[in-house]
Amino acid sequence: MNIPGFPDAQAAARRIARWTHRTPVLTSSTLDRLTGARLLFKCENLQKAGAFKARGATNAVFTLDDAQAAHGVVTHSSGNHALALARAAHCRGIPCTVVMPENANAAKRQGVARYGGQVISCAPTLRAREQTLQALVARTGGHFVHPYDDSRVIAGQATCALELHEQAGPLDTVIAPVSGGGLISGTALALGELAPATRIYGAEPANADDAHRSLHAGHIIPGDAPETIADGLRASLSPLTWHFVSRQVADVLLVTEAEIITAMRRIWEIMKLVVEPSSAVALAAVLKAPERFHGQRVGLILTGGNVDLDALPWRMTL
Amino acid sequence: MNIPGFPDAQAAARRIARWTHRTPVLTSSTLDRLTGARLLFKCENLQKAGAFKARGATNAVFTLDDAQAAHGVVTHSSGNHALALARAAHCRGIPCTVVMPENANAAKRQGVARYGGQVISCAPTLRAREQTLQALVARTGGHFVHPYDDSRVIAGQATCALELHEQAGPLDTVIAPVSGGGLISGTALALGELAPATRIYGAEPANADDAHRSLHAGHIIPGDAPETIADGLRASLSPLTWHFVSRQVADVLLVTEAEIITAMRRIWEIMKLVVEPSSAVALAAVLKAPERFHGQRVGLILTGGNVDLDALPWRMTL
Repeated sequence: MNIPGFPDAQAAARRIARWTHRTPVLTSSTLDRLTGARLLFKCENLQKAGAFKARGATNAVFTLDDAQAAHGVVTHSSGNHALALARAAHCRGIPCTVVMPENANAAKRQGVARYGGQVISCAPTLRAREQTLQALVARTGGHFVHPYDDSRVIAGQATCALELHEQAGPLDTVIAPVSGGGLISGTALALGELAPATRIYGAEPANADDAHRSLHAGHIIPGDAPETIADGLRASLSPLTWHFVSRQVADVLLVTEAEIITAMRRIWEIMKLVVEPSSAVALAAVLKAPERFHGQRVGLILTGGNVDLDALPWRMTL
Repeated sequence: MNIPGFPDAQAAARRIARWTHRTPVLTSSTLDRLTGARLLFKCENLQKAGAFKARGATNAVFTLDDAQAAHGVVTHSSGNHALALARAAHCRGIPCTVVMPENANAAKRQGVARYGGQVISCAPTLRAREQTLQALVARTGGHFVHPYDDSRVIAGQATCALELHEQAGPLDTVIAPVSGGGLISGTALALGELAPATRIYGAEPANADDAHRSLHAGHIIPGDAPETIADGLRASLSPLTWHFVSRQVADVLLVTEAEIITAMRRIWEIMKLVVEPSSAVALAAVLKAPERFHGQRVGLILTGGNVDLDALPWRMTL
């Protein structure tokens, strides 16, 4: 297991600077009043390809030597890593093929095609993804960039917290959504060096609570095809991300589907940001238990904005 | 007629800095590819109270001496100036009452109340607004802050272009939506001093084309209760804004309702920003005639994000 270190995060920051946005950190006095905390939102929904995943994917693609890159890159992803890898491959001028579950959202599928990537569909389980991917690698010789169980990807995601630390200054708490754990591992990697006193929380849908259960059990408990509106949060921890989660994450907070939708709508209405449901779990966790964060400076990572505008959750609930 | 000068804009920038956001300037390589121009979006949808109007209203309210402020402030507005004035009054701790047309959108009405402002409804014509306002001033002694025919307001709106100039560097063109003309007058005020070679265009719904017709006729032609989805763009030029528009605006570009909705959806989908229809007219004008801006660095002001999420235009058209 190749565990990335802080110098890898710094190298990633230099490597990807040309290809990614330094996203803004935005605040809202209305949400501060509602929660009693000072919230600082790192807006990765405004990142290239619409999500923080551009960081890790770009770092991985530009770390490859020419021989490795020649056959292109492949991956499996419910969406944003797929988009990000397709875009990174496009930037480098190499082919990209991604395995996506049948229930991946339309906006994300179309995005992959827009960046010139090929999509192969599979059943919505981790097992189906991995089998389809294996066949793909065997056929094309493409280089597999795992969405999170990859030290280059984690070092890339760490650049998000590097920037947040520079932009927002010292934080009492940082909350990041958890799926496979790449983002929160990168967050732990960066803040463990820069701000070891900052508490790191994960946030997860109660419907996809594998990281919460893993942390409390003391070992990885994989989820199996969880159903949640937060379509970016269906994956499970890996050995590499478990390394960071088990050592540095204070807790993984759980929120219901209704709480996710409410938080998402508040971000749209109050902050004027298009975020996907997965982005809203961090704010949902604060709105659910504001006393835990009262008076604190809290960093929240808005992970992405690739939502299908024809399938907004409040259309379904009205 | 009290025409504001560049020092008034500089003073406004100092006066409002504590109460307003320095909003980010965002770019999109996807929209650049679509248009063939380099587009720089000044994101006033992320401004306090959700629109650039916070600048002018805050400048006006904090220019008042204590005796003037004692009876509070009043205004008429289709929405965003109302919100902005209510918030500015709240910041200063004085009362605010606003006259809003019956067809003002629900999000904007609720916003005024959230900032502690009072709303009085009137018929959706400029005449009805003005009569209701007159009665209100007579009754309360409140200080009238006109949404645009006010030099303090124009000096405040000028701070938007001051920041854009600092953030984006030299621009070939700046496009701002035009309603009463406060924003474009402020833009002309700032850029006339800082970047006199930058071409300034207005953009307007064809359904509310009074500024276009005025500019081509050489005198103010008021609109009368125009119907457009761009609910922030229903007002007409005033003597003060005509001063700037007639001297410094190259042209006022017209776009259809369908073009506004398409541009709005592209901003939501590609830039992940919640913008109201009025914000989308500038991009709509570029998408309609990209050859006019080919290869240019074009600043576009996204004016506001106070949209009713239960009444999105693509719900109606699907």
